[in-house]
Amino acid sequence: MRVDGRHYRTIWPASDGWAVEIIDQTQLPHAFVVARLETADAVAHVIASMMVRGAPLIGATAAYGLCLAARRDASDAALADAYAMLLATRPTAVNLRWALDEMMAVLKQLPVDRRVQAAYRRAAEICDEDVAINSAIGDHGLPLIREAWKRKGGDGPVNVLTHCNAGWLATVDWGTALAPIYKAHDAGIPVHVWADETRPRNQGAALTAWELGRHGVPHTVIVDNAGGHLMQHGMVDLCITGTDRTTRAGDVCNKIGTYLKALAAHDNGVPFYVGLPGPTIDWTIADGVAEVPIEQRYAEEVTQVVGRAADGRVQPVTVTPDGTSAANYAFDVTPSRLVTGLITERGVCDVSEAGLAALYPERA
Amino acid sequence: MRVDGRHYRTIWPASDGWAVEIIDQTQLPHAFVVARLETADAVAHVIASMMVRGAPLIGATAAYGLCLAARRDASDAALADAYAMLLATRPTAVNLRWALDEMMAVLKQLPVDRRVQAAYRRAAEICDEDVAINSAIGDHGLPLIREAWKRKGGDGPVNVLTHCNAGWLATVDWGTALAPIYKAHDAGIPVHVWADETRPRNQGAALTAWELGRHGVPHTVIVDNAGGHLMQHGMVDLCITGTDRTTRAGDVCNKIGTYLKALAAHDNGVPFYVGLPGPTIDWTIADGVAEVPIEQRYAEEVTQVVGRAADGRVQPVTVTPDGTSAANYAFDVTPSRLVTGLITERGVCDVSEAGLAALYPERA
Repeated sequence: MRVDGRHYRTIWPASDGWAVEIIDQTQLPHAFVVARLETADAVAHVIASMMVRGAPLIGATAAYGLCLAARRDASDAALADAYAMLLATRPTAVNLRWALDEMMAVLKQLPVDRRVQAAYRRAAEICDEDVAINSAIGDHGLPLIREAWKRKGGDGPVNVLTHCNAGWLATVDWGTALAPIYKAHDAGIPVHVWADETRPRNQGAALTAWELGRHGVPHTVIVDNAGGHLMQHGMVDLCITGTDRTTRAGDVCNKIGTYLKALAAHDNGVPFYVGLPGPTIDWTIADGVAEVPIEQRYAEEVTQVVGRAADGRVQPVTVTPDGTSAANYAFDVTPSRLVTGLITERGVCDVSEAGLAALYPERA
Repeated sequence: MRVDGRHYRTIWPASDGWAVEIIDQTQLPHAFVVARLETADAVAHVIASMMVRGAPLIGATAAYGLCLAARRDASDAALADAYAMLLATRPTAVNLRWALDEMMAVLKQLPVDRRVQAAYRRAAEICDEDVAINSAIGDHGLPLIREAWKRKGGDGPVNVLTHCNAGWLATVDWGTALAPIYKAHDAGIPVHVWADETRPRNQGAALTAWELGRHGVPHTVIVDNAGGHLMQHGMVDLCITGTDRTTRAGDVCNKIGTYLKALAAHDNGVPFYVGLPGPTIDWTIADGVAEVPIEQRYAEEVTQVVGRAADGRVQPVTVTPDGTSAANYAFDVTPSRLVTGLITERGVCDVSEAGLAALYPERA
């Protein structure tokens, strides 16, 4: 998508052909900073520190991590070490393992001296595939927004509530939840987005607001507490979120708080959709609440908030009394019964094992 | 309750016998500052700016506002002006109108030269009544916590989730939601509180954590998004919140986001109680979602967060891109069907018109 008139992806090979460049998302929305990565260690660091985040982008970045590892040492042992290190950076998103496995499947069958070139080729393909998947999610989600607009008689914008950031910044391009919104906006359908700020890291307030603003999509930031009230009063036409891992039965693991919005949508008859790329489906598990490991992150993400002070410096401020304990669960699971439909690159499906199996017969 | 070993209420007459002193809650948890109020205008300012907040404390503070107004001019016209000004400070809490009406009922029937003394006497009574009400709420709520402890076989603490601050800082003393928790803690029942941070103003992170910490009650701060996940995983034994206005049918208007927690409690079979002082009941309305006016506050409360920077200065930081729009609804309404019981000063009642009428036959 565009930033100051120039097209960007969130990750790309540097002009020297071997290093990798990313947008440092911890600096947004206050500064647009590109970071150059030269080692697999650096890649692991940017994933763990959330300089890149979002399930699809984590996968793409990890793929380039294996390229950089192979460039230094493409032996089986070295690649296995890099694989394990990269896999350990974030426990919840299933795309991470998926992308690393895709890379290893290619590399293992090649002689060591041909692995580097193949790695870069497969990583680039993974990125291109992600862009194509998300564009297709946008195409399949667009009619849902168009229908909501028709239901309103073309009167006023379609109000879409989203949680966290599942826009182009969470992917290589287009986004998952936001792809249908960008496609609807570009098609001339008036769309307005309620962007949950998404504590503790404020990806909604910082990233969703930033990327929607740069693309010109009208939006309003709200606290995470507000969505239920808006839905009670008819101010939300549909919800669309992303997902970090969805089970084969359609349980949706996503940013902490998604479950609460799905409950409110269900209680008020508001359709609740999830933008779901195929690689985010975990075919190995069914019961999301019982089986998806939920990452716990630093207490400081809760006790502190990072923002720009009056003097322009971006810094954390502490909101709790000294010494206060905090718990920081990063994700929750929305049971399939609360989700209206899954918007995949192959179409919108019922939220069930049968619904997903019908779209992905080769995996089911 | 105690602060550094000294007993405080949240509001008290100054030692000169006519001015009024309050704890400036916008300075907490970073500084404990007492503010002296000498005029009704000053009282209106501290209510509107939320230096005092919480439905019962707003009512008590407004009562002293009429004392200060009467001291300057106790005529009918002057009191009517002060009444209107104070009533306009916050639209949602019903205690504000209740306390002002209580004051006016006393003052109107007296000759002008006897009004000042009567006003101070009635304001002091309103404060004492609030303390007695909250203490009784604590006594009636304590058995609910004791029963939860027994259900767990006395194993581990009772985990209580609360939203916003409905502790002693929201009242004159004891609190509403937190009164049963203080009584249980003082009775030797192990209690642990999950304190929602409560964006946008972080009353949970700042005030609930502070007052629980000063009293020695174990607690953990969580983001507002986290409660659903905790309830899905059996980590919450019961929820207790306060209320700013409850309809005669039992619809609970409280801090924005309360509704989402009630939905999660209902979905997971977790009891959801509300600490409800009699003066917070609005007998004039039944349907809370349709009839309670919801205050909208400044967008800056959403786009900025106030906290203590590394250099010790308390200041706001901006979390959104420049120029981002934000909506800031301060309260929402939890329908009675989602509430397990109302803990009043007269006992715990069914959440219905009949349930409330049985406890307050003189009003029903």
